[in-house]
Amino acid sequence: MTAPHTPTIETPVQVMFFDTDCAAVVHNIAYLRFIETARTLLAEQLGWKLSEMGGTGVFPVVVRTEIDYRRPGKLGDELLVRGRLARVERARFHVAFDIFRPSDEVVLVTCRQVLAVAAMPSGRPGRLPADWAVRFAHLRSEKSS
Amino acid sequence: MTAPHTPTIETPVQVMFFDTDCAAVVHNIAYLRFIETARTLLAEQLGWKLSEMGGTGVFPVVVRTEIDYRRPGKLGDELLVRGRLARVERARFHVAFDIFRPSDEVVLVTCRQVLAVAAMPSGRPGRLPADWAVRFAHLRSEKSS
Amino acid sequence: MTAPHTPTIETPVQVMFFDTDCAAVVHNIAYLRFIETARTLLAEQLGWKLSEMGGTGVFPVVVRTEIDYRRPGKLGDELLVRGRLARVERARFHVAFDIFRPSDEVVLVTCRQVLAVAAMPSGRPGRLPADWAVRFAHLRSEKSS
Amino acid sequence: MTAPHTPTIETPVQVMFFDTDCAAVVHNIAYLRFIETARTLLAEQLGWKLSEMGGTGVFPVVVRTEIDYRRPGKLGDELLVRGRLARVERARFHVAFDIFRPSDEVVLVTCRQVLAVAAMPSGRPGRLPADWAVRFAHLRSEKSS
Repeated sequence: MTAPHTPTIETPVQVMFFDTDCAAVVHNIAYLRFIETARTLLAEQLGWKLSEMGGTGVFPVVVRTEIDYRRPGKLGDELLVRGRLARVERARFHVAFDIFRPSDEVVLVTCRQVLAVAAMPSGRPGRLPADWAVRFAHLRSEKSS
Repeated sequence: MTAPHTPTIETPVQVMFFDTDCAAVVHNIAYLRFIETARTLLAEQLGWKLSEMGGTGVFPVVVRTEIDYRRPGKLGDELLVRGRLARVERARFHVAFDIFRPSDEVVLVTCRQVLAVAAMPSGRPGRLPADWAVRFAHLRSEKSS
Repeated sequence: MTAPHTPTIETPVQVMFFDTDCAAVVHNIAYLRFIETARTLLAEQLGWKLSEMGGTGVFPVVVRTEIDYRRPGKLGDELLVRGRLARVERARFHVAFDIFRPSDEVVLVTCRQVLAVAAMPSGRPGRLPADWAVRFAHLRSEKSS
Repeated sequence: MTAPHTPTIETPVQVMFFDTDCAAVVHNIAYLRFIETARTLLAEQLGWKLSEMGGTGVFPVVVRTEIDYRRPGKLGDELLVRGRLARVERARFHVAFDIFRPSDEVVLVTCRQVLAVAAMPSGRPGRLPADWAVRFAHLRSEKSS
């Protein structure tokens, strides 16, 4: 019997001018773009291929984001977005992220997103893959919010 | 004696191509840009003039965002971002938003943001205006999270 | 006989934090978002209704942009994007823009875009409306670049 | 005697949802973000370190962009931005880019940008590095536009 596997992702990003604002720090919205890239690559691991999503299709959509801004990032910072599948419910799942600056070991941002599977663009709810109940049993919670 | 005043804002926005993605709906990050515009105009009402912020200065910064995506928006939708000052703590304050589509009276998005006053770009904490304790007494909470 | 009519548009925009970068000026890409909003509203005047574009459909797409950055914009600036239909060819048309700051009468940016009508998402070329040959005869050029 | 060296850059990028719009193709503005990342890394090769730019400082700023959209990109496309120093004038320089899709060898976009060195945020003109007259003699042109 193998240990349960928790899908994780790490994506590097360097802060560009367009990520910053005139307060000389990374703009709060830019971090969500960094996280979106990491989450999309995590979704590929989970079986949703990027080039097959979009247009018509059934794929995960964000239904809630919580993000805490702890420390400011600056132009040129080399950051690491670290994500993981955090919880699996009946019809939704949670992913958790932090954005880390290896040079001084500071966590700039923490974030949690809740996703549901939906047929787009109608928005009609879909199902999580059938094998998740077993595959991610260690991430199940009774709560189906 | 006058009734307590709760600052509010309403800003209209029409969904452009760059707000949408290939799932044919408004992209989740675009709503945060809509909210940012409303929040900035609300901050002007609260005494932080936009043209005097930026660079060096003491002004409110977002420390937390919670956003729930309830219904999809589409290209050309004429939306209304409705915001209000929701809670005042000792060193932070909360603003609450929804994004409403008047044509069918649907709320697409609800959002709450927590702001702290900081000297930028150092990030050194600042104080809320001294008169807020009285002016917004009806929005005070004991909790200083 | 009436004078020929040249469609024009003016859209106001105020510079937000997310439009600026850490050089304390408006980021070069943000101006293209300002222009896109003006161009979309100009296209509505020309008969392409925003809420009917997107997904499948035949509508104008940008095939070339030329933009000159003349003077920097700053946080809080209240700007005016001024656009007009500038030239009509057989299968394409040109729109010209400037971005003007009324407070000091400075032109920050000038821009010209060339558009073609296409069926999306295939990209198959479409035709300009049949009545344009007469309606915009004063904007015709022999050159079909 | 060594052959003259022309600085070049190649940066990979994968198309994310936020790069696309509801016409199911990459939005025209998104390509400029791809190019900006490549150009910034090319500027690092030329001696402007990203983490030292921003705020006060003397660094290259875009004064003109010309971009041609040739073929549409799609969600998930793995693209390559290829840039090079194209021309050196007395006070300005040109960089040329294309955006290439290796999977089918299609060029989606070509772009040329003109940059000037400026002290920001004042915008006061600066000088190109003194050694460029020799180092990039093969890219000099008499025209000082």
